[in-house]
Amino acid sequence: MGVVVNLEDGKRDRGSIEGLIELTRSDMTRVNELILSKAGSDVELIPQLARHLISSGGKRLRPMVTLAAAQMFGYSGEGHVKLATSVEFMHTATLLHDDVVDESDLRRGKQTARMIWGNQASVLVGDFLLGQAFRMMVEVGSLDALEVLSDAAAVIAEGEVMQLGVAKNLETTEDEYLAVIKAKTAALFSAAAEVGPIIAKASRSDRSALRSYGTNLGLAFQLVDDALDYGGSTRDLGKNVGDDFREGKVTLPVILAYRRGSEEERRFWKDAIEGEQADAAALDKAIRLMHRHGAIVDTVGRARHFGEIARDALAPLKATPQKAALVDVIDFCISRVV
Amino acid sequence: MGVVVNLEDGKRDRGSIEGLIELTRSDMTRVNELILSKAGSDVELIPQLARHLISSGGKRLRPMVTLAAAQMFGYSGEGHVKLATSVEFMHTATLLHDDVVDESDLRRGKQTARMIWGNQASVLVGDFLLGQAFRMMVEVGSLDALEVLSDAAAVIAEGEVMQLGVAKNLETTEDEYLAVIKAKTAALFSAAAEVGPIIAKASRSDRSALRSYGTNLGLAFQLVDDALDYGGSTRDLGKNVGDDFREGKVTLPVILAYRRGSEEERRFWKDAIEGEQADAAALDKAIRLMHRHGAIVDTVGRARHFGEIARDALAPLKATPQKAALVDVIDFCISRVV
Repeated sequence: MGVVVNLEDGKRDRGSIEGLIELTRSDMTRVNELILSKAGSDVELIPQLARHLISSGGKRLRPMVTLAAAQMFGYSGEGHVKLATSVEFMHTATLLHDDVVDESDLRRGKQTARMIWGNQASVLVGDFLLGQAFRMMVEVGSLDALEVLSDAAAVIAEGEVMQLGVAKNLETTEDEYLAVIKAKTAALFSAAAEVGPIIAKASRSDRSALRSYGTNLGLAFQLVDDALDYGGSTRDLGKNVGDDFREGKVTLPVILAYRRGSEEERRFWKDAIEGEQADAAALDKAIRLMHRHGAIVDTVGRARHFGEIARDALAPLKATPQKAALVDVIDFCISRVV
Repeated sequence: MGVVVNLEDGKRDRGSIEGLIELTRSDMTRVNELILSKAGSDVELIPQLARHLISSGGKRLRPMVTLAAAQMFGYSGEGHVKLATSVEFMHTATLLHDDVVDESDLRRGKQTARMIWGNQASVLVGDFLLGQAFRMMVEVGSLDALEVLSDAAAVIAEGEVMQLGVAKNLETTEDEYLAVIKAKTAALFSAAAEVGPIIAKASRSDRSALRSYGTNLGLAFQLVDDALDYGGSTRDLGKNVGDDFREGKVTLPVILAYRRGSEEERRFWKDAIEGEQADAAALDKAIRLMHRHGAIVDTVGRARHFGEIARDALAPLKATPQKAALVDVIDFCISRVV
């Protein structure tokens, strides 16, 4: 079943995000300025909470993708900075609402906004950032870009609702799970990539190429994230390992370990995930079972599979530094885990 | 201080919503169809929850205003139906998020969605409806309408966050409270009215007129709502009386009664609103104090004041059935309370 993955090969195509950072450095300075100014408000709580989110780090991968995708087709205006900022705001709004929905205490090892300012502020500041995102998109004035991004907004929310349905449901199939992350995560990557060629007035096929790149990069990115939550292939347990497990989230490593497990193992998963007995000892056992059944390695294998589709999506495009950087990011995302 | 209001005059200008209903009947049939179809999703929870909201009634005042405002300037396309539906979705999304933020159990005497499906689904289905609203607006293709509606989305959320700040704060001034409801309620009425002349390609001054009408109708509407929550002028206590009080909301009737009250009365308000001692006996006393200080009558007086501004905003426009219906609605909104 599992795609064969040679973990020893990890180093060969480790990939890098450096090229993307370099190419988008000056544009990202303007994105960061715009983030700060558009997260401003006379209502004090809004900039407070926004600053917390902004300083929480994160690589700002999505806006960099938008910027590079616009540059790649010779775009020379200012619209890509606004669209990239909109994409980041949509992402931030989703995180704020997610933390409320998942009742998360920590994100990237830091207290979540809802723990500091409460669920109420998180819901409403999320709404505010979404409103600001739409304002900026409208300012850019491209109806095609607006269509792609508003579609994404609805699809993301649909994916989140779908995820409520599969939550704590161990019978979720891999297909069902993929449908969730395609909507919840990949839709925004896809839109982030596609609006680049859109404002650069590139061709239909260029739009399709970037759209496909974004979707598949997003899927790979999410699957790697899922694997990392169980320590990844290296069993190097970072400080945030086990968040998904403790919240009872059914992600691909769980789905594979559950389906491949013995009756007795499946009872363990039911107790842990559905019965909410996900303590440290259970996490330890979960990780052992995952490795026994190749669930982590195969999750990463699936990520590689989507990474290859992303790479092929860009293949026919003219060689540019932006194309090279976007391809490099695929491997970078996957190499986080090996 | 209070605007002089002769409650006995109530019957003279009772106003009516019948004209508006009649003029928008066939368009509203299409709005209702569009609501049902755009609230549809393969993700079962979404149409379930949406149907609950749709069947909860409500007068659909905002979309009717959009439709009439478009008709008024001779609009003959289909865009007004989509914009009206978008406006209603924005309103519904706000209600869903509000109920989560306010931890409300009941709305219009019915269980809130969050009590049936949980806060999680309410947050996410709200996001979905907002995404669908933007999708529809984009389909209409008017960047001016998009600007007005996306501005409103950000301002509404800003108003909600502002409201968190004034919540349970009895020192809130009337001005501060007006700023909250201007953002939270009036901004959507304003946008709902302005997009009519926008898609009908009416003049700048027509846009301004409708915008001003919407803003002031929204303010009047909210103030009347606030008064009704304490039984209105007639002391006819409907079944939903006291919701704001129990949730410790500082609305204009409370602000006026508190500011005009004795030291001892102010202690009562502090215990009830800030100390969360808002039981049935306290509600009874609150209503008595409000009447003693003319707080309800003057809240309605303020509503009339904004109603008059709304009427004057439309005054220079050519006489049409739509104009007459929109003016009639001002009095209708205010007469709910007397």
